[in-house]
Amino acid sequence: MPTRQPISLGLSMRYIGYHAASWRHPQAQPGAGSDFRHFVRLAQSAEAAKFDMLFLADGIGIRAKDAPPGALQQTAQSTVLEPLTLLSGLAAVTERIGLVATASTTYNEPFHIARKYASLDSISGGRAGWNIVTSWSEAEARNFGRDKHMDHGPRYARAAEFVEVVKGLWDSWDADAFVHDKASGTFFDPAKMHVLDHQGEHFRVRGPLDIPRSPQGRPVLVQAGASDAGIGIAAANAEVVYSVAHDLNGAKSYYDKVKNAVATAGRNPSGCKIMPGITTFIAPTETEAREKYEQLNALVPEALGLSYLYGQMGDLSGHDLDGPVPEPTDPAVRSIAKGLLALAQRDNLSIRQLYTTIAAGFGTRILIGTPRQVVDELEAWVEAGAADGFNLCPPVLPSAFDDFVAMALPELRRRGLFREEYSGTTLREHLGVTVPNSRYGGAVVPRE
Amino acid sequence: MPTRQPISLGLSMRYIGYHAASWRHPQAQPGAGSDFRHFVRLAQSAEAAKFDMLFLADGIGIRAKDAPPGALQQTAQSTVLEPLTLLSGLAAVTERIGLVATASTTYNEPFHIARKYASLDSISGGRAGWNIVTSWSEAEARNFGRDKHMDHGPRYARAAEFVEVVKGLWDSWDADAFVHDKASGTFFDPAKMHVLDHQGEHFRVRGPLDIPRSPQGRPVLVQAGASDAGIGIAAANAEVVYSVAHDLNGAKSYYDKVKNAVATAGRNPSGCKIMPGITTFIAPTETEAREKYEQLNALVPEALGLSYLYGQMGDLSGHDLDGPVPEPTDPAVRSIAKGLLALAQRDNLSIRQLYTTIAAGFGTRILIGTPRQVVDELEAWVEAGAADGFNLCPPVLPSAFDDFVAMALPELRRRGLFREEYSGTTLREHLGVTVPNSRYGGAVVPRE
Repeated sequence: MPTRQPISLGLSMRYIGYHAASWRHPQAQPGAGSDFRHFVRLAQSAEAAKFDMLFLADGIGIRAKDAPPGALQQTAQSTVLEPLTLLSGLAAVTERIGLVATASTTYNEPFHIARKYASLDSISGGRAGWNIVTSWSEAEARNFGRDKHMDHGPRYARAAEFVEVVKGLWDSWDADAFVHDKASGTFFDPAKMHVLDHQGEHFRVRGPLDIPRSPQGRPVLVQAGASDAGIGIAAANAEVVYSVAHDLNGAKSYYDKVKNAVATAGRNPSGCKIMPGITTFIAPTETEAREKYEQLNALVPEALGLSYLYGQMGDLSGHDLDGPVPEPTDPAVRSIAKGLLALAQRDNLSIRQLYTTIAAGFGTRILIGTPRQVVDELEAWVEAGAADGFNLCPPVLPSAFDDFVAMALPELRRRGLFREEYSGTTLREHLGVTVPNSRYGGAVVPRE
Repeated sequence: MPTRQPISLGLSMRYIGYHAASWRHPQAQPGAGSDFRHFVRLAQSAEAAKFDMLFLADGIGIRAKDAPPGALQQTAQSTVLEPLTLLSGLAAVTERIGLVATASTTYNEPFHIARKYASLDSISGGRAGWNIVTSWSEAEARNFGRDKHMDHGPRYARAAEFVEVVKGLWDSWDADAFVHDKASGTFFDPAKMHVLDHQGEHFRVRGPLDIPRSPQGRPVLVQAGASDAGIGIAAANAEVVYSVAHDLNGAKSYYDKVKNAVATAGRNPSGCKIMPGITTFIAPTETEAREKYEQLNALVPEALGLSYLYGQMGDLSGHDLDGPVPEPTDPAVRSIAKGLLALAQRDNLSIRQLYTTIAAGFGTRILIGTPRQVVDELEAWVEAGAADGFNLCPPVLPSAFDDFVAMALPELRRRGLFREEYSGTTLREHLGVTVPNSRYGGAVVPRE
């Protein structure tokens, strides 16, 4: 048997959990999504469990009044904390676990992003990561002076240039630039400061950054590329890729595609870890696990459930929710409804069952079963070369995360798939990805 | 004798201290400006001393290669942490002290600022403040795609609208909006959510914010208005004003001007606290205090000192630094040099003495003496109605702050001028400024 490479595990902490009805769970604290103490408890639990990282997804706004009337006030999405402030707070009460915050290249400026993530990396002693997104909703556009979201082409062109600028700013200082010579009055060696002076299509940014080189050399770059343009950005930059995959073949095909693209971009494929999202319902018996799943599904309010179909299928509220999914009559909707309709017809789903598949995990892969059954699935994906780790998106926080730690983690460790202790102190060390070179050839190893 | 209103005290933590040579001080840790532990120690000391707030000034860039060659590498300004990330980290390791971060209205978007400060207010349990600035340097402009800094008029017009948008977003939710009714599936009462839908000259912002109403109702607004436009923004908004004043008459005249403007804007003048900046050198004897001052002044490198005169007087490096300050021959410089030249002639200062007056405190009022002498000055300003408190800008951190706590604070307390204990938990409670009304008339008192 070959020596196993331990997998990476991340905990995604969005809302009170990934299930749409999480806040109605009997054990849930509905206001926890904006309660710092809730996140401190999660972060410290995840660190005690030796997870690689915490992750915060993000949108910059609420899709207010877009959905059919009555749906918005049934969700917990109005109650969040802003990722960079939250993770900076958590940096102060944890010591080892990585801290990955999402920020949009469409609605930010590269100098701010370079500076804030370098600062978080410094505050945390080398544990910061940036999840690069381009955003997707009109709600975000309208919070930033635009009527519509940017089109895909220019949005990804902006993103690619944005990331180049941020990396350039992170190279502003060689790691040994700061000599701090009190006798001569020399604070830094000017030959080791680099002024980027970027002049591009989307940005003009002078630099240098006003923060010394970050403890990790650079914060870790994370991405979730699905389109060709997205995979292009991942190939050039990402050290972690969050993927969405529901079956082993699809996962393996995506894994191979990304790893090949990374190699084609001249990077070592092992320096890019692919981590599909999973939402787990775990119990000592399969029956109990399924009961946990059904209990939450029964709590999805009808208006909220229908809102998940609204964008693709229009308003279905006039139909029997336990009857078959109707073919849309509105020609504007008919073409985009195809995917959901095919799923409903294949599995013979009612309207209620169809929206529940979305409400239960928002696109992550759902695993329901005993610890052994769940870990069998994870191991199969790793063995098949379809995943380097997983981004855990528990349906309810903290209870479903506690279930994973109590039941799945010991089984993973028994099989040699996950660490017993941290061996390093930075997120790069946990992931096993190297410190990138500076574009200026200077030292990248931090001073002590 | 009337009952005294205790004064407010803030600690400004920029760099390793406000003196240009602070990092060369024998006790200074030159790298401390980007060392989180340095700031944790300061924050916890200031909280133990019952200070109202910590304050972080900010610029978004380094004035690289603007000064005469050789000056930049003699300053510690290349080594900072970003204010919002730093204060979010400090929020997690403190319990009472206020946290005021600077952010520019010229190089930010109101939705981000509203969201990040609401998040910091939530994380800290009601201790956040926003110091509103419009920035001033070309270096910042060039980090954000512009060649020049915006002109004063449009810059302040943008700032005024920016603040209105941020306040509007902070009113997105009434304090009692979140009913969290698990039985009915109602997370919030939609009548208590407010969509701003701002359409202005500089911004179009839809809202609502995706964070519940902040524990303070709104984060505290801080400003440092000097121009008429700046005082206008302070009058309409500021709950704290950081002022720059060197003599009692000037301080009193500014104080009266701001308080009158606040009243004219329809607000209670006692809801706007005016806090001049002070840089203190304190020792048991006046001679020792003066020695502390002279010791640091002797450490100002010549190129760095000359750089402080460069913008207004041109390059004086060809002159005898211990000789008189020459009248500039360059006609472009002659008119802007007037102020410094008049100061030099009035006090018969050499070039070295002139740049030292700037290097020693960057425009704050410098107080040198015994605890009694320093507190006499502070008391005189408070008694004369020239200050409601002070923003302490120690020349070296932490040592000069420790001096203030050990020597000046007991004297202030002996005179009944400063609190022995916190009586509240939020920054508003420390300052004694009320929670503002919501523009929609809804509840502003936070839920427990």
